[in-house]
Amino acid sequence: MGKVRNVLFIMVDQMRADCMGVAGHPVVRTPHLDWLASRGILFSHAYVQTAVCGPSRMCTYTGRYTHAHRSYWNEVPLPLDEKTIAHYARAAGVRAALCGKTHHTPDTQFIRWLEERGFKPDPIDTTNAGFEPWEVNEFWGDGWMQHLKSQGYDLPFDNPMMAAFLVQTPDGRRMNGWRFEAARYPTVIREEDSDTAFMTRRAMEFIADAGEQPWLLHLSYLKPHWPNVAPAPYHNMYDPADVVPPVRDIGELDNPHPLLEPFRVERRSLPFDDEETWRQMRATYYGLITQIDDHLGRLFRFLEARGRMDDTLIIFMSDHGEYMGDHWLFEKEFFYESAIRIPLIIYDPDPRADDYRGQVVDHFVESIDIVPTCLDALEIPIPAAVQGHSLMPFLRGETPEQWRSAVYGDWDFRFYQASQQLGLEGDQCRAWMVRDRHYKYVHFAGLPDMLFDLRADPDELHNLAGDSEYKEVVEAYKTKLLEWRQRTEDNRRGQELEDRIGRTGVSWVPDELVWWE
Amino acid sequence: MGKVRNVLFIMVDQMRADCMGVAGHPVVRTPHLDWLASRGILFSHAYVQTAVCGPSRMCTYTGRYTHAHRSYWNEVPLPLDEKTIAHYARAAGVRAALCGKTHHTPDTQFIRWLEERGFKPDPIDTTNAGFEPWEVNEFWGDGWMQHLKSQGYDLPFDNPMMAAFLVQTPDGRRMNGWRFEAARYPTVIREEDSDTAFMTRRAMEFIADAGEQPWLLHLSYLKPHWPNVAPAPYHNMYDPADVVPPVRDIGELDNPHPLLEPFRVERRSLPFDDEETWRQMRATYYGLITQIDDHLGRLFRFLEARGRMDDTLIIFMSDHGEYMGDHWLFEKEFFYESAIRIPLIIYDPDPRADDYRGQVVDHFVESIDIVPTCLDALEIPIPAAVQGHSLMPFLRGETPEQWRSAVYGDWDFRFYQASQQLGLEGDQCRAWMVRDRHYKYVHFAGLPDMLFDLRADPDELHNLAGDSEYKEVVEAYKTKLLEWRQRTEDNRRGQELEDRIGRTGVSWVPDELVWWE
Repeated sequence: MGKVRNVLFIMVDQMRADCMGVAGHPVVRTPHLDWLASRGILFSHAYVQTAVCGPSRMCTYTGRYTHAHRSYWNEVPLPLDEKTIAHYARAAGVRAALCGKTHHTPDTQFIRWLEERGFKPDPIDTTNAGFEPWEVNEFWGDGWMQHLKSQGYDLPFDNPMMAAFLVQTPDGRRMNGWRFEAARYPTVIREEDSDTAFMTRRAMEFIADAGEQPWLLHLSYLKPHWPNVAPAPYHNMYDPADVVPPVRDIGELDNPHPLLEPFRVERRSLPFDDEETWRQMRATYYGLITQIDDHLGRLFRFLEARGRMDDTLIIFMSDHGEYMGDHWLFEKEFFYESAIRIPLIIYDPDPRADDYRGQVVDHFVESIDIVPTCLDALEIPIPAAVQGHSLMPFLRGETPEQWRSAVYGDWDFRFYQASQQLGLEGDQCRAWMVRDRHYKYVHFAGLPDMLFDLRADPDELHNLAGDSEYKEVVEAYKTKLLEWRQRTEDNRRGQELEDRIGRTGVSWVPDELVWWE
Repeated sequence: MGKVRNVLFIMVDQMRADCMGVAGHPVVRTPHLDWLASRGILFSHAYVQTAVCGPSRMCTYTGRYTHAHRSYWNEVPLPLDEKTIAHYARAAGVRAALCGKTHHTPDTQFIRWLEERGFKPDPIDTTNAGFEPWEVNEFWGDGWMQHLKSQGYDLPFDNPMMAAFLVQTPDGRRMNGWRFEAARYPTVIREEDSDTAFMTRRAMEFIADAGEQPWLLHLSYLKPHWPNVAPAPYHNMYDPADVVPPVRDIGELDNPHPLLEPFRVERRSLPFDDEETWRQMRATYYGLITQIDDHLGRLFRFLEARGRMDDTLIIFMSDHGEYMGDHWLFEKEFFYESAIRIPLIIYDPDPRADDYRGQVVDHFVESIDIVPTCLDALEIPIPAAVQGHSLMPFLRGETPEQWRSAVYGDWDFRFYQASQQLGLEGDQCRAWMVRDRHYKYVHFAGLPDMLFDLRADPDELHNLAGDSEYKEVVEAYKTKLLEWRQRTEDNRRGQELEDRIGRTGVSWVPDELVWWE
């Protein structure tokens, strides 16, 4: 028996991999994450399978690529027969609870089909990605709103998406926090009532409630996802003059990939062309990250005081990154490093990890590795459906043989206006990505490719896909994509059958029948 | 309202596309199929998505590619949320019944998960591909066995797989019909009690039973799939001296594709090296086809007598072909034309088809087109999940714009010993195929490719994939495969969402929120 009895699985939303002190950031202060990394392992090359909240999270929760779980975009339902870490943990007797957001969409049509036949599935199985809903907050959680009401805030609670993020200008006006010009002002809600503070408190309450029973808590913060507004003192903790400038080049705007320009317009990226905007937006973004870090400090101290640092695996990660002006973009679409590379720290309480604490592992990690890591830590068998690999060996000084040499991604962009402006059919709105130590290649079904030489051009400023000198490279990486898909189709039922009866067990005409006299 | 009220969907098992008089075969007599073709349309370039019974049928029944429905091989369950033509028809008030075989495997694990939660799904939904089980015969049907018992046969009924196919030698011995040397002898079971006769009778009984209510009957014969034994007089109706020789070249045995040689051994192909064997096997195979044709004649006369030729769409097809020694192979694996090209005739009772009866359509058809064709004929809306296209326009003299210029296939060969002999992991056992008017290209995940120039080498005797002269061709067809998959992933839930709310309806942060004052 190992020492891991619980898992604290922390996710933040839209936080860049580089925005931690331990990752070398020159400005953002994250002393508690740095502390966690000093006690655990920082994975410097961790990637999500797609850089949009919903589908990325479904990869993380199921341990399967987007094309396997098929929840391709926000609001596209996760099929009911897809199992998440919560289902696996609960089936093994581990209490699996949610404190925050999953961006999971239930399989409504199929559930309706079942209901028409007289069966109403347990909502715990079919909603919130299978987690017990300890405190759900999909950006406007009931519990948080109740809390704000109880604190006597005068807010437009009939529109919680607005209420939660109003800011106050010095002259006493209230302003919509979703607008970029709001970034410089503090939220009406005080820090101690903010979502970050509230969710942290609720997480502690869960841990107290769970007592000595094994648990897996998914603490899933809303921030630093926009609306990019912070409570005092975080709203002006960083001076806009000090922020790191965007990674971009004016040349990127000449003759860009055809999807980039309509996308820049649609995704509200244009304000980032302006220096004042990106400076303020980045400063507030840093503040939101430091706010989370401060609350994680509280949480880690709470765990220590209760002895939970001795039996709890802690995972800290983001669901994807954020451009904040990199490549002239806002948010997280496409496959640039700013979007798909994530912060990932894992702390293992087991003494077998002691000799390796504080190390950095630069092997390629994919978000589909989180499920097998949790299961492995909890000593629960890893089902055939899971496509990722446990990271536990890395925590204990081992590198598994034949570890992956590339990471892969998938993006369905049909639900952007840009796809219509380009006249694309829904099924053409697909891009697949492979990234190894040398190149990143993206193949679009109905548009030109993208190719970056990451050695010569680590900032991904020069798309080489159209350059005839790179024809061989493109062909080689196209083959990588093809074979990735051949090897990772959703064949879990075939794999389960193979696991049960072996490779040659299903020849329906057995030899003994054919050769029988 | 069109005239089609019923669909008679006839499938035979393992019948080659070329084995019909109307297809130009010099030996096999199929006067009733020829008659049907003279009243309907013969599709000369119809292909299945994979040449193994179970997965091929699941493509045909769901209207979806193998990677979409994920029943990759015989006995790999069809996921419960996959819908078939039977589910669609029943939901629209059309009685959908099965008379014969589907090779469908229920989604046992998921059904168990539901049962553990107190829900027992209706077996009509979860078994027999959703069809009402009028008369099921998966090679050893209860109804047929009961019939044989009632006729006083002295057979080993404890082993129906054996009982059904015993033959009688002239010296009075009984011999196992699964052995190739049995092909020359008549079955113990008389013709009028054979599976083909019994199932045809049961189909007529269904049509009588259905009366004036709309119906879709899947009449699914077991033959001419081996055991390659026929009742008198069909067992020696054709002279082995007259059969068409196998399409093969001795050069194919030199330096073959690495999967071919172990496969030849495993799939009992070696006896076909011997001329006496392939001659006898082909002669008996022809006999089985003519037997089916004779019973189809009875069935068509029955329909005419009842007026059903006036309101019934009739589809005749096979689930895949058969090598019978072509390329030194037996059965139907790989993607040679003998295996993936199928006979397909469709008869449309509507007067709008009158001007086009007897024509041959050589456009590419895929088996996933059958579901939309049936739905279209019955005026039932075609769901987003369906990946094929209705063939109804062809029946009425129209060619849809931008009709497909290639057909595609997928094969999971993990459940063959050959895959283990080659040391392949389960997820490496994948081959994808594209075939257009010029080339056929097959990409294997862990093995060399196959490329045939169908113009220069229509018999597919020379694999050009390793030839550096064809490097550009290989790259071009690899891209076709990649984009085929990008465009046909199982994104039906995304498509349903798009159909419901439009392309840009799910941006979770609406503009009016962001720009609200």
